[in-house]
Amino acid sequence: MSAIEDILDRFATGEIDRAEASTALGRAYFENLGHSTIDHDRLRRTGSPEVIYGEHKSPEQVAATFKAVADRGHNALATRVSETAAAAALAAVPGAVHHAEARLVTFKQVEPDPVDTQVAVVTAGTSDLAVAEEAALTAEFYDSPVLRINDVGVAGVHRLLARVEEIRSTKVVVVVAGMEGALPSVVGGLIDKPVIAVPTSVGYGASFNGVAALLGMLNSCASGVSVVNIDNGFGAGYLANMINRL
Amino acid sequence: MSAIEDILDRFATGEIDRAEASTALGRAYFENLGHSTIDHDRLRRTGSPEVIYGEHKSPEQVAATFKAVADRGHNALATRVSETAAAAALAAVPGAVHHAEARLVTFKQVEPDPVDTQVAVVTAGTSDLAVAEEAALTAEFYDSPVLRINDVGVAGVHRLLARVEEIRSTKVVVVVAGMEGALPSVVGGLIDKPVIAVPTSVGYGASFNGVAALLGMLNSCASGVSVVNIDNGFGAGYLANMINRL
Amino acid sequence: MSAIEDILDRFATGEIDRAEASTALGRAYFENLGHSTIDHDRLRRTGSPEVIYGEHKSPEQVAATFKAVADRGHNALATRVSETAAAAALAAVPGAVHHAEARLVTFKQVEPDPVDTQVAVVTAGTSDLAVAEEAALTAEFYDSPVLRINDVGVAGVHRLLARVEEIRSTKVVVVVAGMEGALPSVVGGLIDKPVIAVPTSVGYGASFNGVAALLGMLNSCASGVSVVNIDNGFGAGYLANMINRL
Amino acid sequence: MSAIEDILDRFATGEIDRAEASTALGRAYFENLGHSTIDHDRLRRTGSPEVIYGEHKSPEQVAATFKAVADRGHNALATRVSETAAAAALAAVPGAVHHAEARLVTFKQVEPDPVDTQVAVVTAGTSDLAVAEEAALTAEFYDSPVLRINDVGVAGVHRLLARVEEIRSTKVVVVVAGMEGALPSVVGGLIDKPVIAVPTSVGYGASFNGVAALLGMLNSCASGVSVVNIDNGFGAGYLANMINRL
Amino acid sequence: MSAIEDILDRFATGEIDRAEASTALGRAYFENLGHSTIDHDRLRRTGSPEVIYGEHKSPEQVAATFKAVADRGHNALATRVSETAAAAALAAVPGAVHHAEARLVTFKQVEPDPVDTQVAVVTAGTSDLAVAEEAALTAEFYDSPVLRINDVGVAGVHRLLARVEEIRSTKVVVVVAGMEGALPSVVGGLIDKPVIAVPTSVGYGASFNGVAALLGMLNSCASGVSVVNIDNGFGAGYLANMINRL
Amino acid sequence: MSAIEDILDRFATGEIDRAEASTALGRAYFENLGHSTIDHDRLRRTGSPEVIYGEHKSPEQVAATFKAVADRGHNALATRVSETAAAAALAAVPGAVHHAEARLVTFKQVEPDPVDTQVAVVTAGTSDLAVAEEAALTAEFYDSPVLRINDVGVAGVHRLLARVEEIRSTKVVVVVAGMEGALPSVVGGLIDKPVIAVPTSVGYGASFNGVAALLGMLNSCASGVSVVNIDNGFGAGYLANMINRL
Amino acid sequence: MSAIEDILDRFATGEIDRAEASTALGRAYFENLGHSTIDHDRLRRTGSPEVIYGEHKSPEQVAATFKAVADRGHNALATRVSETAAAAALAAVPGAVHHAEARLVTFKQVEPDPVDTQVAVVTAGTSDLAVAEEAALTAEFYDSPVLRINDVGVAGVHRLLARVEEIRSTKVVVVVAGMEGALPSVVGGLIDKPVIAVPTSVGYGASFNGVAALLGMLNSCASGVSVVNIDNGFGAGYLANMINRL
Amino acid sequence: MSAIEDILDRFATGEIDRAEASTALGRAYFENLGHSTIDHDRLRRTGSPEVIYGEHKSPEQVAATFKAVADRGHNALATRVSETAAAAALAAVPGAVHHAEARLVTFKQVEPDPVDTQVAVVTAGTSDLAVAEEAALTAEFYDSPVLRINDVGVAGVHRLLARVEEIRSTKVVVVVAGMEGALPSVVGGLIDKPVIAVPTSVGYGASFNGVAALLGMLNSCASGVSVVNIDNGFGAGYLANMINRL
Repeated sequence: MSAIEDILDRFATGEIDRAEASTALGRAYFENLGHSTIDHDRLRRTGSPEVIYGEHKSPEQVAATFKAVADRGHNALATRVSETAAAAALAAVPGAVHHAEARLVTFKQVEPDPVDTQVAVVTAGTSDLAVAEEAALTAEFYDSPVLRINDVGVAGVHRLLARVEEIRSTKVVVVVAGMEGALPSVVGGLIDKPVIAVPTSVGYGASFNGVAALLGMLNSCASGVSVVNIDNGFGAGYLANMINRL
Repeated sequence: MSAIEDILDRFATGEIDRAEASTALGRAYFENLGHSTIDHDRLRRTGSPEVIYGEHKSPEQVAATFKAVADRGHNALATRVSETAAAAALAAVPGAVHHAEARLVTFKQVEPDPVDTQVAVVTAGTSDLAVAEEAALTAEFYDSPVLRINDVGVAGVHRLLARVEEIRSTKVVVVVAGMEGALPSVVGGLIDKPVIAVPTSVGYGASFNGVAALLGMLNSCASGVSVVNIDNGFGAGYLANMINRL
Repeated sequence: MSAIEDILDRFATGEIDRAEASTALGRAYFENLGHSTIDHDRLRRTGSPEVIYGEHKSPEQVAATFKAVADRGHNALATRVSETAAAAALAAVPGAVHHAEARLVTFKQVEPDPVDTQVAVVTAGTSDLAVAEEAALTAEFYDSPVLRINDVGVAGVHRLLARVEEIRSTKVVVVVAGMEGALPSVVGGLIDKPVIAVPTSVGYGASFNGVAALLGMLNSCASGVSVVNIDNGFGAGYLANMINRL
Repeated sequence: MSAIEDILDRFATGEIDRAEASTALGRAYFENLGHSTIDHDRLRRTGSPEVIYGEHKSPEQVAATFKAVADRGHNALATRVSETAAAAALAAVPGAVHHAEARLVTFKQVEPDPVDTQVAVVTAGTSDLAVAEEAALTAEFYDSPVLRINDVGVAGVHRLLARVEEIRSTKVVVVVAGMEGALPSVVGGLIDKPVIAVPTSVGYGASFNGVAALLGMLNSCASGVSVVNIDNGFGAGYLANMINRL
Repeated sequence: MSAIEDILDRFATGEIDRAEASTALGRAYFENLGHSTIDHDRLRRTGSPEVIYGEHKSPEQVAATFKAVADRGHNALATRVSETAAAAALAAVPGAVHHAEARLVTFKQVEPDPVDTQVAVVTAGTSDLAVAEEAALTAEFYDSPVLRINDVGVAGVHRLLARVEEIRSTKVVVVVAGMEGALPSVVGGLIDKPVIAVPTSVGYGASFNGVAALLGMLNSCASGVSVVNIDNGFGAGYLANMINRL
Repeated sequence: MSAIEDILDRFATGEIDRAEASTALGRAYFENLGHSTIDHDRLRRTGSPEVIYGEHKSPEQVAATFKAVADRGHNALATRVSETAAAAALAAVPGAVHHAEARLVTFKQVEPDPVDTQVAVVTAGTSDLAVAEEAALTAEFYDSPVLRINDVGVAGVHRLLARVEEIRSTKVVVVVAGMEGALPSVVGGLIDKPVIAVPTSVGYGASFNGVAALLGMLNSCASGVSVVNIDNGFGAGYLANMINRL
Repeated sequence: MSAIEDILDRFATGEIDRAEASTALGRAYFENLGHSTIDHDRLRRTGSPEVIYGEHKSPEQVAATFKAVADRGHNALATRVSETAAAAALAAVPGAVHHAEARLVTFKQVEPDPVDTQVAVVTAGTSDLAVAEEAALTAEFYDSPVLRINDVGVAGVHRLLARVEEIRSTKVVVVVAGMEGALPSVVGGLIDKPVIAVPTSVGYGASFNGVAALLGMLNSCASGVSVVNIDNGFGAGYLANMINRL
Repeated sequence: MSAIEDILDRFATGEIDRAEASTALGRAYFENLGHSTIDHDRLRRTGSPEVIYGEHKSPEQVAATFKAVADRGHNALATRVSETAAAAALAAVPGAVHHAEARLVTFKQVEPDPVDTQVAVVTAGTSDLAVAEEAALTAEFYDSPVLRINDVGVAGVHRLLARVEEIRSTKVVVVVAGMEGALPSVVGGLIDKPVIAVPTSVGYGASFNGVAALLGMLNSCASGVSVVNIDNGFGAGYLANMINRL
């Protein structure tokens, strides 16, 4: 029985009154830090505790929310974290780890059920590595094994063809590409697994900071391809793990 | 052993020469209709035969490619088909079915393996129905059972809350919304399944024919959400079935 | 009788001639500082003295216009003020206050009529706090009491539902959100009060510095929602107070 | 006591069981027409029954939802209704009225509390009339008296100045303008009431179907101005009535 | 000696005076039809007589300019010609030919020097055929032999690989693609010849009438690729012939 | 003495009271037709009576405002007039003239002072003629003589060079161009007169209905160039006459 | 007789041969500095020597081109000059003057004919001053007297009305405004002189660095308004002087 | 016989088995550095070894890939290289050369076949020099002789006309321009050679970092013009050499 059902039953039987029920329900669901309202019920609802989005937050805010999640006994993950905020989070939660290139801070204290199947993370070019690592490390944070394949963009399509069988052996594929963003279409035409396309802001001029890649991926002529926000490695890794565990 | 491997072995053993091998490989892979090159190998590679994209094609071209797929013994699906092209396809392939609202033509002669789990297709408003039906019928074409939930947009969020348990019972959720496109974020925050967001061109003024909804979905603050092209019901239904069958 | 009507009467009776009337009218209306033309009539016309927009102005210009308003005996407010300009304004007007996070400088010497009803300022996430504070402090500058509710975005909609009754108790609601900007739609569907939506530049990639949130809010499927410029906390707070005092 | 509270009490006292309570709650809240989920609780939550958005819906769908609202005893309003859909709605609900220029269909059977104060609806040009009428008729549907002032755009600012006192006598002002959309700024600088700005798609070339006016209004240098979607006369009229009744 | 040099010499020697020289030069260069100024010198300058752009012109204007070019003894080509304008051109110039799918009208009375090398015109999908034919027929108008390869888009990359050797045998390659426009990158990575990429308006939603394909091609990670306007088959065919004849 | 000054004097001397003065001033300034507020004072203020913008107006509205201007004894001009509205205007004002290509209706009953100097209207191509005629006829409506030079675009720059002296003989130059909109830069670099650049919507694909030409003109590297809206022949002709008469 | 005509005559009479004529013509027209080709003929053609655009140039390049113009005996003007480049120019040309706020460097050694009439430069707000000074100083560089009127934006329209007669006394008006850019429309509706509108990048959020103001100005409902590039004070001042001297 | 064919033959004859063949093929084609997959087969396929794109890469990555190409005995080229990365590359590959203005690093150890014909690189203004040098140095890296012509933009078109014959003597022309980007149209109308247009980000305001120039070039009314990405000097130089060597 969930904590929520327990409170409802106690209210129905009169063990607690309406006011007490309301307060108890509130605490079970979330915690008010003033500047933030931490969603402690999220794990039950969505299978994952709340993730801290680090941008536009002060180092103090990042550290406080990171610690609040960790203190509940959950694994904690913060994304798009500046150097300063990462230092604050590590000071607040001993044992946390900073992945600088991917701008992540992680803290693991619970092991999820193991999973056999793999997530592939494929990049078009070396310049896409930071975003790809954000995806790969996120999937690994949720304990999905990751196969990394780098720099197999469409201008040298034989590099990709040589590794198609490896990619086919995984359950879901994250494809990270900037510039024209064509790699997901080619991959999607070669395999029978879901492709999560991540446009990156790699490029210049008419790449418009990733818009060209984003549009290319949204208009993919291959089936089985869906898209996340520009440079959203976290979102792709999260979804990949979710599909990998279905 | 696949047809391809068979040809390679016959070449290695000298049963056929290089020129014969080349011709045989070509026929196994695709068929040249002049205006189109039909990808008969696609079923092996991606688990699904080629789908005919109906727009910008003449009725004769649609009918010919639809028939070419059907004649190989595959199930056939054509999308974004005009009334005239649908008539041509039905004339060319007796037994084909026209789904007018969703602009699909389907022809089924093979039954895939049955699957127990369900795909949910959820709409924000009644105006989104045509796109949602394109998604639902596509998933059903590949034999995934579909749960349809209509008109539960965020301006009356209790309508959605009342049906969350139903949605949670499915394996993957397609969410179809126009205007501000906020429904996938709310759904994604309530469940632990992949959400495939489909922006629609429903709206006016600053909806810019679906751009507002598309941007809203790409920037979703909920995790587990990915996005397909505006009005791309087919793409969402195809991917939903693919995930549903993992 | 207003100063203007007084001058007109004196002109009609011949007490002053046309040239004198013109000069007197000019002084009653505005003051020419060379680089700026201060609108001293604004209080009569719009119920509020002129507010100083601090961007693209030198610290000297900000301080001089701030002082000119204060010297007339009005309360003074400057927005989007840099650190340097704030220091100059405080030096010019002793007793002025700098609100650093919200980038406001205020100086109060007149108390408006008290008002009982409240303005709510609601944020989707902690990253939206600076803009929300600009709105809240502006409403408070005009002596509207403010209820602050933070971090109740749509990805955890129960956090919002738990506080709907509080929001309903206010007279007008400012909703501040970045990313997909969906919160105003959900709030607007739950209450019967005007919602002033403030898109923020919080987000990355296809948020396009707040454009995604702006479009989401303009296309809100909820009624009773209107929108101000991206990051325009001042405008929202000003309008909220105006409505709160109707 | 609301219907909802009544059901909850009957559940708490055991008069109905959990399953019965769930069903009763559902019916009190909304009605499932298959293609639509009508939000019957909206009146309680937001002070207004659900409004039917007519675009992208079949005439049958418009008529059915319009009738479902009317059959509950509510006043009914449908917006952006085609000629055909209007005819269907009038056939379904005898006594309904079609306002062709504003593309509205209304049906009134309940009179709200009367209100003394007025809403002003001001247009920049004659070409903006259709949108302005949508706003004015919407406010009148909710029984706010409306003052209409037409064709007082900024290229002849004395036309506006001559009527400022009339506008000042109202409680809230809707300003409708296309092209450069400058009228709300001038009006906002002259009065101390909330201004709801409605950009219209009137114009050509670089008006981009109302985008120029929309941007002009969002960047208004006057305070007290907020903005709704391009051509959204309904939204402005709805909000104006809401503010008028505060 | 060119006509121009002849006139200059006659002026230098005094055979004609300054006024006569000016008039003679004018006639040698262009012809004033009132609505049009036909550029008869263009053949000398650029190697090709003026081509008539048919859009936004009346049938009479198209026919008159087409005839004026033909009457000078040049081959004539009109692009983007409506059915009506084509009929007018054929009536004005007996022997002209209408290519309906490509919207061209051609009239040939002069044979250029033959050329051995070939232009390849490659399409991603059958929907791109009209633009591809505009390119191919234009190259053929200038007497370049054309190799047509259709429907070899990146979602089935083996279709392209099977025909790479054919493409390599040509001197310059026009690649026509809509949707994500990825084919030129893949082709450019496989061959050592100039690739002229033509984005088409094939697609829907976020293809934005060819913008996605255009951006994809401009950001191509393959070298040797340049781009022409969306749907500009003529421009690609013209340039391909020019390169083919170098 | 103007009518306004006359009224003011009569008020100052007591001949009329404040209420009478107010009414008289109102009538002198504008006329309220209900749907329109005609600006009869505009002639005094700006040197030209009000011009009727025909788009988004019913034929009845166009005809009524056109007649109201004519009935005051002014010359009347309506722009962007549909065929139907033109017929209505001609029926309402006998003697009015319809210029179909330029979509203007004019009625002249007053001759302005003659002017010796000329306005040049130059087009890049024949497709730009309709907009150019709107400019030329507008300038002629205000009695400026017009020199028309057509089809001298930058792809054949000698056509322009041959006519530079003619253009230099005028006082102000309107340059009308679509596609890349480069002609104003070249003209502006050759003459010492103001250049009014009019981008047209001529083109396709990445011309974006005139945006490419508009941007080209705004970024002109030549000095003395200013720009009006896309296809705004009227605005250019009006301004050209105004400059021509300085 | 111009230098060019002199050379032509010497060629026609045989005093110089074709090669010598070509060389002499080249030197009369322009000077090749390697990185730059200075257009010395520009004064004859357009009435003004070449102006140096300072951006994207090294300080050495700015100084060298500035000196080359000055050494020919012309007045010299450089725009958008960095602090470093200004110092280099002043070192290269003693007597040159740096206007820091407007980012101009000027050097005057020739006095043009005096002109009686004035150019008005009007700003909407104090933040627009830098661009306005660029315009005013440019007009003064060409010896047009300038009337400066600051901070009379549309949110306090009486500030403008009080100064209309002053503005009417000038021959041409430059109006500089950011944000919604509405001031040119109001000014254009009050006077009968050409209005040159300069959008500035003043604003934030949906001002898009001046795009909102630019669009507002292009769509001005007032006649007689034309527009230059965002922040292009130089272009406006140059054109204003040109019109002022007609 | 190529290395690939050699491996295939050895497999067909049984000299090596399938596993060995696979490994050998892999090494012949590319080299896996972990972060990068170097495409060693590219020289055979496209006539040029892989070029290193320096942006978004660490100095270590740039140096390692640069060295890997050089170690194979190929000429090496890295583009868009930061100062730091250039230093790293020079340290890794003694003899490499850094071209700072063009941001290139080159290393040559092989001389290609000489070619007689020339590439022209033409700029509109001095501000375009950095991009032009990237193009010119790239063409020279591949041993095409380059003719440089600078600062001949359309605002002084005689500067261009004076040098047309020089340009006509080359085989292919790269035209580099910012602002309105009109130069390629004028050049394309004067010569009979392919024009590769390179838009640059030179300009401000509505140049939108090169978008105005890009659109101008895509809409060029001259034939024979194609376009590369904004500031893509490398791409233009690469393609120019490729065409020059046909």
